[in-house]
Amino acid sequence: MRMYDIIRKKRDGEELTKEEIEFAIQGYVNGSIPDYQMSAWAMAVFLRGMTDRETADLTMAIVHTGEILDLSAIAGTKVDKHSTGGVGDKTSLVLAPLVAAAGVPVAKMSGRGLGHTGGTIDKLESIPGFSVELSQTDFIEQVNRIKMALIGQTGNLAPADKKLYALRDVTATVDTIPLIASSIMSKKIAAGADAIVLDVKTGAGAFMKTLEGSFALARAMVKIGAAVGRKTVAIVSDMDQPLGFAVGNSLEVKEAIDTLRGEGPEDLTELCLVLGSHMLMLAGAASDSQRAREQLQELIHSGKGLETFKRFVEAQGGDSRIIDDTRLLPQAKKQIPVYAQEDGYVAKIHAEEVGTCAMLLGAGRETKESTIDLAVGIVLTKKVGDPVRKGDTLCVLHVNDETRLDEVKKRMSQSIQITSERLQKQPFIYGVVTDEREERYV
Amino acid sequence: MRMYDIIRKKRDGEELTKEEIEFAIQGYVNGSIPDYQMSAWAMAVFLRGMTDRETADLTMAIVHTGEILDLSAIAGTKVDKHSTGGVGDKTSLVLAPLVAAAGVPVAKMSGRGLGHTGGTIDKLESIPGFSVELSQTDFIEQVNRIKMALIGQTGNLAPADKKLYALRDVTATVDTIPLIASSIMSKKIAAGADAIVLDVKTGAGAFMKTLEGSFALARAMVKIGAAVGRKTVAIVSDMDQPLGFAVGNSLEVKEAIDTLRGEGPEDLTELCLVLGSHMLMLAGAASDSQRAREQLQELIHSGKGLETFKRFVEAQGGDSRIIDDTRLLPQAKKQIPVYAQEDGYVAKIHAEEVGTCAMLLGAGRETKESTIDLAVGIVLTKKVGDPVRKGDTLCVLHVNDETRLDEVKKRMSQSIQITSERLQKQPFIYGVVTDEREERYV
Repeated sequence: MRMYDIIRKKRDGEELTKEEIEFAIQGYVNGSIPDYQMSAWAMAVFLRGMTDRETADLTMAIVHTGEILDLSAIAGTKVDKHSTGGVGDKTSLVLAPLVAAAGVPVAKMSGRGLGHTGGTIDKLESIPGFSVELSQTDFIEQVNRIKMALIGQTGNLAPADKKLYALRDVTATVDTIPLIASSIMSKKIAAGADAIVLDVKTGAGAFMKTLEGSFALARAMVKIGAAVGRKTVAIVSDMDQPLGFAVGNSLEVKEAIDTLRGEGPEDLTELCLVLGSHMLMLAGAASDSQRAREQLQELIHSGKGLETFKRFVEAQGGDSRIIDDTRLLPQAKKQIPVYAQEDGYVAKIHAEEVGTCAMLLGAGRETKESTIDLAVGIVLTKKVGDPVRKGDTLCVLHVNDETRLDEVKKRMSQSIQITSERLQKQPFIYGVVTDEREERYV
Repeated sequence: MRMYDIIRKKRDGEELTKEEIEFAIQGYVNGSIPDYQMSAWAMAVFLRGMTDRETADLTMAIVHTGEILDLSAIAGTKVDKHSTGGVGDKTSLVLAPLVAAAGVPVAKMSGRGLGHTGGTIDKLESIPGFSVELSQTDFIEQVNRIKMALIGQTGNLAPADKKLYALRDVTATVDTIPLIASSIMSKKIAAGADAIVLDVKTGAGAFMKTLEGSFALARAMVKIGAAVGRKTVAIVSDMDQPLGFAVGNSLEVKEAIDTLRGEGPEDLTELCLVLGSHMLMLAGAASDSQRAREQLQELIHSGKGLETFKRFVEAQGGDSRIIDDTRLLPQAKKQIPVYAQEDGYVAKIHAEEVGTCAMLLGAGRETKESTIDLAVGIVLTKKVGDPVRKGDTLCVLHVNDETRLDEVKKRMSQSIQITSERLQKQPFIYGVVTDEREERYV
């Protein structure tokens, strides 16, 4: 077998065999296939596409380049959740304790933030003392003990994905569904998931900007899951405006705690209930979505979700007093409001811009090497559809380093658009895709 | 400017600016753009194409990565001829002395053979003493003195083409017209041509297997020539069967001499007259093709073409006695006939197979590092359409090393197909493409 022929075949729009895909991926990881052949192949995939079968084979080929986390020592179905990334997305911080409180084990690995999007691992590190590093044994032991552990990526999981992604990133071959879908799914499968709930974001702040693209990605991932024996459900949710109000690490932890207390933003709470219901159903802990939802709501009202969160923080060395006194989280020196310049209604809050502004304040990384300030960020005070009067606070900037403050103020002012007409409420969850059906709510 | 954006733009089917193309090519040659970006770009070009303007800009960008041969010290229009390569193609050996004898200067660089196709430089080296290496000064001086010089590639001409071709060769991005056309034209322009006559081969033994593909390549190159101020004419000629009878270096020199003497194969003679007429017209040495043709025929009949060839061989150190006694050329030890197994008519002689068989006997290179045997090869005794009787000689193998003789015998026997029905004579020249018009003869 020669990589040349595999490139040529895909270039001509033909379907690759499982063996050809494995040859390419294995060869790329072991160095026998050079970058320049892989990038030509990736461009051919970008422009010619892949069948569902090819995409599933690609996913498993990537998985098999590294170890697969063995979570068999944890009883029950291990359901993982993945979000395609957004601004203000602290869902995992709420969802994991809720699902764990319902008796479903959560053994989760998360990543760090880059660019305009944040990462769960960074957010957790804003809790004083919290450690995201556990040995595999301690990780499993903790899940068996308190039903929940959340750590940074460990071990040699899906190394082909890392290498391939770095190459795609510099050769304009990132934005193509077969490669995105296989990248995401390979990491979840390598991390030991039995079943997967996906939160595919759509809109200006998301990786996929269009609804059609988001549903296509959702379908591709659900099909991979079905093909490789990991039941997968995907939700398509809005990321045109940020999720909730807070953007920035400690600010988002505070908002997650508020949500576990039943005092969170409407959109974030709803998203956690929808994703959580599917997780419960996939784990066999609820028979239908109505009962699953009620169960989760009860865990919020009873405080049992928050209690699990507290045990989790303690188990990983964090200061759990932050739950009752969030002022113990890192606080920025200054709070600077941005005011409305006119009367009207909020028409748009450009999520990517808000994420970028938070990054400019120090909450996110411009490059992988940047250090971040866990205290800073942005808290919105209005969301799309809200009425505003001139002089109202639109958002509050939490600032330590003022170097780029003027730029941020200006950009935030522009990224919150105000219109004179009252807008129709937009849906927040656009639909759900399972192996059997696709439901759309718009 | 970033290579990433240039890849993305071409990926999305957009037209690149001249500056973007220059940035990519210059950066690739100076090493600031890595192979893996260039190969992704080449695949995007393969699948998205290029406009005529882009292709012309690409050609000149490649030219400007190296020196352009300055032939201004040679009086008159320098018309170069290029063939896209075939089996038994000794056209340059006949054409160059004929055109030179008509007073048009021929300052030509040629290449070596690879795979199933031969190279003019190898053929000339079968003349004892002949040197294909001349300094630039001697090269120009010789053309001024005897109107003709023919050497191997010298200097740093179009280095981007060399680097890019090597990359395309291993990433399945060779067979695409904008990249083929710019590669060929850049080399001719860098070699100092004022005007160019192209012989685009079509058929089983050619680079372009289909007539449509061959005309498309012809059009693309003629358009480049027009865009960059080098008048270009392209002929599309047959390469389904080998050109002439002889395939192999000294065997082809002998056939070229026969042709200059007026005793050459019909197809080779016709091709030289057609290509030569266009060269004379482009150089301003003939007003129309009928007169140009007559002039060339007269140069054959008078022996003036052959005389020029003799002076040329002497000027480059070769033993010119080979002209009157071709047995002084390298001779193979054995001549082994291949016989017809049935009565009928020759339906097909698979040119690529014949070329490969000649290579297997030692006449050609399997890799760039192979050494070749200048004496060996194949001489056909029949051509397509000829009647044969069982036991007739179809071809004669000229053999030194018998290692692969059995394989060659078998493959040659299969590559000459015999049918019971008389075939209609196929055209040999399919058409001509100029900047103003396209004529097709079928």
